[in-house]
Amino acid sequence: MAFVIGIDGGGTSCRAALAGLDGKVIGRGASGSANIRTDLSGARASIVKAAELALADAGLGPELLPQTSGVLGLAGANVGTYAQQVEAILPFAASRVVTDALIALEGAVGSGDGAIAILGTGTAYMSRKGTEVRSIGGWGFIIGDQGSGARIGRDLLEETLLAHDGVVAATPLTDAVLAIYRNDPRDVVEFTTSAKPGDYGGFAPMVFDHVGKGDETALRIIERARQAIEASLAALDPAPGTPLCLLGGMAQLFAPRLSKRYQPLLRPPLHDALGGAVSMAARLFGERQS
Amino acid sequence: MAFVIGIDGGGTSCRAALAGLDGKVIGRGASGSANIRTDLSGARASIVKAAELALADAGLGPELLPQTSGVLGLAGANVGTYAQQVEAILPFAASRVVTDALIALEGAVGSGDGAIAILGTGTAYMSRKGTEVRSIGGWGFIIGDQGSGARIGRDLLEETLLAHDGVVAATPLTDAVLAIYRNDPRDVVEFTTSAKPGDYGGFAPMVFDHVGKGDETALRIIERARQAIEASLAALDPAPGTPLCLLGGMAQLFAPRLSKRYQPLLRPPLHDALGGAVSMAARLFGERQS
Repeated sequence: MAFVIGIDGGGTSCRAALAGLDGKVIGRGASGSANIRTDLSGARASIVKAAELALADAGLGPELLPQTSGVLGLAGANVGTYAQQVEAILPFAASRVVTDALIALEGAVGSGDGAIAILGTGTAYMSRKGTEVRSIGGWGFIIGDQGSGARIGRDLLEETLLAHDGVVAATPLTDAVLAIYRNDPRDVVEFTTSAKPGDYGGFAPMVFDHVGKGDETALRIIERARQAIEASLAALDPAPGTPLCLLGGMAQLFAPRLSKRYQPLLRPPLHDALGGAVSMAARLFGERQS
Repeated sequence: MAFVIGIDGGGTSCRAALAGLDGKVIGRGASGSANIRTDLSGARASIVKAAELALADAGLGPELLPQTSGVLGLAGANVGTYAQQVEAILPFAASRVVTDALIALEGAVGSGDGAIAILGTGTAYMSRKGTEVRSIGGWGFIIGDQGSGARIGRDLLEETLLAHDGVVAATPLTDAVLAIYRNDPRDVVEFTTSAKPGDYGGFAPMVFDHVGKGDETALRIIERARQAIEASLAALDPAPGTPLCLLGGMAQLFAPRLSKRYQPLLRPPLHDALGGAVSMAARLFGERQS
């Protein structure tokens, strides 16, 4: 075997990076959705396509796939038996399917101790202390993902209805939201009957915008989110001196708001999640295997 | 015209009460779902059927329908143009379609000043002060219905996941909930992908049960619900000396928990919502018309 491959696959796209046994990337490829929970064979097709494109990018042919071993970080790999199912049908020499959060952790902090907080449309946390990897959150916005863009957006719509009813004071932010819905609370409710997490999350920038203007509703919503994030970090309990990386679309928005306990730990991520998959693959299957 | 009719229609059933022009009920009937938002012609059929059964119960024939005027309290009548649409196709001499909350208010406190809080799977509030009728809440549990059975149940599942992750302390209640899902948080999440308000609301009795045992999680959830209910009551601002009726499945559970401001106002409802529809019909179309 001459090559290893890293795969980062989720609901919207699948990316692959081919590397030598030393972990040095020599080719990249990308394809469509790789959602193992809703479309296992489609996910396999996207994974193979991204891998073949990475081989082609390195000037190599698809016949090398069965001689290449890979680490695949796939969204949904923590639920049910999807990880084992997809491992069983992949064409690689050897495959290790892990969660998208685990390759993000590896990419961000490397193979040593450290922690990540993924702060995007959803929220999830992961840490490594010695041999122990611990995961918190990532349960989706209906009964989880506290502090996420989806929860911030949902909170905003809830506050808007309460303001309309006179239960809380209206502010420029709730007025602006209600105006989007023609000042009709029934249209706000209608929106929620089919809204997906990303639809709610689309309101998060507007909330942060109004924080800057001192809007009381915005301040309340973001403080609630900040406290939720701190509560999860406290449960993760990162050790002093170990890196803590904030990832996801809201990372830069929350970084300056974290309390003094976490500020000294904050580091920019070393690599992205795909880079994490590649270095895990090199460690497991390449020259650096332990 | 010799008779008036009251109708109480919602997603699960439709009830009718026929009365003389003095509002005295002489016949009753019931039929299936009357959901004007999802099935307008089916709702009309259920309304007509319940009305004909009420006529039959009084020993009268269906040919009297076009000589009978009615007040119909229908769930969903506050959204869009459904109320006007159904009014246009009903076979009564005259029809007045109002919300289910309005006939509940009329039934509970009569035609004078007063307020109701409907505390069930959802929550909604309505008050009358002179000629002004005011409605609060009733927006559904996704971004509304604070304090409802559905929100209590959803809060419980959220607390259960947080306890599983070590973000909040586990208690006998969260342990019991997790055990229902084979101690697998993924099964809790799976439940929420298709759970309806009533499915979440099914957990409310379990929460109240654990309040009695001093469970910290249960106490926190119910106190949050109580505060939400008080906030809506404060916005309603019922006048001293006017009746306040708590209706719905959780009325008796919350009544003793309300603050001193509202305790002196609490009254048992005079009649149910169907009774309210009948007396509104007698007032509008019968001898008591004003």
